[in-house]
Amino acid sequence: MRMSQLFTKTTKEATHDAESPNAQLLTRAGFIDQHMAGVYTYLPLGLRVLRNIQEIVREEMNRIGSQEILMPALLSAEPWKQTGRWEDPGPEVMFQFTGAGDRDVGLGWTHEEIVTPLLKKHVHSYQDLPVAVYQIQDKFRNELRAKSGILRGREFNMKDLYSFHATVEDMEAYYDEVLEAYKRIFQRCGINGIPTEASGGSFSRVSHEFQMPTDSGEDLIFVNQSGDYAWNKEIVPDLKDGDPAPDGSGPVKMMKAIEVGNIFKLKEKYTKDFELTFMDEQGQPQPVYMGCYGIGMSRVMGAFVEAHHDEKGMIWSKSLAPYPVHVISLNSKDETMQERIRTTAEGIVDDLASEGIEALWDDRLTVSAGQKFADADLIGDPLRLVISEKTLAEDAVEWKLRNESESRLVKHDRIKEEIESFIKE
Amino acid sequence: MRMSQLFTKTTKEATHDAESPNAQLLTRAGFIDQHMAGVYTYLPLGLRVLRNIQEIVREEMNRIGSQEILMPALLSAEPWKQTGRWEDPGPEVMFQFTGAGDRDVGLGWTHEEIVTPLLKKHVHSYQDLPVAVYQIQDKFRNELRAKSGILRGREFNMKDLYSFHATVEDMEAYYDEVLEAYKRIFQRCGINGIPTEASGGSFSRVSHEFQMPTDSGEDLIFVNQSGDYAWNKEIVPDLKDGDPAPDGSGPVKMMKAIEVGNIFKLKEKYTKDFELTFMDEQGQPQPVYMGCYGIGMSRVMGAFVEAHHDEKGMIWSKSLAPYPVHVISLNSKDETMQERIRTTAEGIVDDLASEGIEALWDDRLTVSAGQKFADADLIGDPLRLVISEKTLAEDAVEWKLRNESESRLVKHDRIKEEIESFIKE
Repeated sequence: MRMSQLFTKTTKEATHDAESPNAQLLTRAGFIDQHMAGVYTYLPLGLRVLRNIQEIVREEMNRIGSQEILMPALLSAEPWKQTGRWEDPGPEVMFQFTGAGDRDVGLGWTHEEIVTPLLKKHVHSYQDLPVAVYQIQDKFRNELRAKSGILRGREFNMKDLYSFHATVEDMEAYYDEVLEAYKRIFQRCGINGIPTEASGGSFSRVSHEFQMPTDSGEDLIFVNQSGDYAWNKEIVPDLKDGDPAPDGSGPVKMMKAIEVGNIFKLKEKYTKDFELTFMDEQGQPQPVYMGCYGIGMSRVMGAFVEAHHDEKGMIWSKSLAPYPVHVISLNSKDETMQERIRTTAEGIVDDLASEGIEALWDDRLTVSAGQKFADADLIGDPLRLVISEKTLAEDAVEWKLRNESESRLVKHDRIKEEIESFIKE
Repeated sequence: MRMSQLFTKTTKEATHDAESPNAQLLTRAGFIDQHMAGVYTYLPLGLRVLRNIQEIVREEMNRIGSQEILMPALLSAEPWKQTGRWEDPGPEVMFQFTGAGDRDVGLGWTHEEIVTPLLKKHVHSYQDLPVAVYQIQDKFRNELRAKSGILRGREFNMKDLYSFHATVEDMEAYYDEVLEAYKRIFQRCGINGIPTEASGGSFSRVSHEFQMPTDSGEDLIFVNQSGDYAWNKEIVPDLKDGDPAPDGSGPVKMMKAIEVGNIFKLKEKYTKDFELTFMDEQGQPQPVYMGCYGIGMSRVMGAFVEAHHDEKGMIWSKSLAPYPVHVISLNSKDETMQERIRTTAEGIVDDLASEGIEALWDDRLTVSAGQKFADADLIGDPLRLVISEKTLAEDAVEWKLRNESESRLVKHDRIKEEIESFIKE
């Protein structure tokens, strides 16, 4: 992508949403645009990040044998009245209104009420179990106040997975599989998502949240000594910083954190409401056990920025960056030199493309070197390559990683190899 | 994908939506599931078709230099009040309600009111024009009555493209480019989408719809003799079947048709409402000219089924089919033979996968040959390969195209080559 063609512009202005670094940086860099509080447009760069996260999640969901579907967002009130959630939490969470020929309808914020009746049409016998389905979809929450940029939106992108099992044991085994899949997802995204014990509600002793420590977090968690497990303060209200961990391991550290995912054993809660049963091998009807598992994709994007930025801008991982490589061609007053710079940059961009690596190329003619560097830092792609009069004199490009302060020259005949090893590492 | 693992089941029952072949077949084959009238879940097979259409549209949109974004579905009333569309057409088309902290909000059915103020933040000078942005998104229409399956939904998937230009001429040139892109899209989808002159509303003399002739269509069009251009009855109310065409060419044919896309010259309509102007080379503010262009992706899916089915089921093109190849392994009572059939089928499926071709494999052990053939016809993947005791005796598989009645045997050592040429042709 050539920046001369990219329609978004970077800005120096902060947004309304001034308290939140993620909204400020994503807005200033032209990744997102606020339509109203808690509701955003994803601009080309931001949409690429969102897609990268979705693709990682999709791969890991498919890997644990779950099948992708897409349920609607506009929902009939009926199944929600059946479970009681039309009234409680009701309009505090769900947008509810009348329409579609004078019906009560609402917007989906979760989909147990849709997926359970759907599965009832396809699950009849023990041979149809287990089954797990997921979707990647925009969801809606009727938040009274929306804040924190894309961390807590009124419209947000989510992956929700629902699994159905013949026995509690099978459900629990799948729960553990999802827990491992979530660890892989957050690791691949470059997010420190710590599995955190939380309340299981009325159906289960515990559930697990995935919490990312950050000062802008709204939750309080106690992290164990090795940093790979935590407890939400809500289930250990008396625990204090430095106390021994509830599991008897060393002292815990109290931290603020953002919830980026959660997994939940629903057991018979919804399958009972909708009478989803199966025939066992003896032809007897048996209850189906259910689990549900969520990850907020837009929230992962915001949380990543909260954790990975400096005063200059965002610092993306290769897996999430809009582009892994940001090429800058500086301008020269000498026309021949200008053309040499342009063709060299174009050659590098084309070489990368032929390897399947897309680059963002700052080819703008009317923009200063300083502005180009500032924009590259703000956008935060992991590798920056600069081509200028100075580098051409050395038959080289300037190679700089976003998360390092030093740059170095890489000779033209070494670039391809170095980039390949950078991409693979 | 193994059908023993696919959670959806085919059914013989018709749905409520009995008048519409697309809804019946897509539902019976497990592609979609009706949540309420005009609102559907996309099941694994249906979601794959939807994705195929989206990918074709995305490629053609990128090819004409437009940039992908994703605007929200939950919209503030303010810009709609500014253009007058909050009241007219208002709630007849838009779901409108109160929420998000006591605001007037609605659900997006088109996005001029969002994209124009968005572009105002990024378009300042003649150097920023032209620019075209598109999105692929679920939209909502407050239809009083929803019918015709996924042809006219209350929630539906759309691609909407908006272009912005410094002059009327530039806008019209881009309009023609989009018209050509739409022709390519419908051709690649296997849809006969005929460019059809329609009313241009109050802003323009004409617009173009893309109309697919089918008896279940709600529009009446007059098609020219060569079948590549038509006129909507609304602009030629006095024209009759067999009359000379309005452009002086031979006699027209009156047909029922479904609108699968439309393109529209908005000119200054919305840019004026939101005061979107640009500075020309002389530093003078000038009006921006706008076009908008839509394709209903879920409607394309439904329209394709209306046009391509027989009494047994759907007949997909390679470009849209959930899977290009449907492999059937028939069961044998002889255990050794059963195992040979299974490993042969698995070998073919794996070979295809290594070539990047995904197959649907009917590996079910408890399903009769007749049921497997019936399901293959209903689902309608273009190529069916059957492995059975009989074919193994010939060192071959049975090769049958969905749109042909004859089958033939293809020897094992020829399968790979034949499939490769089938995929490429």
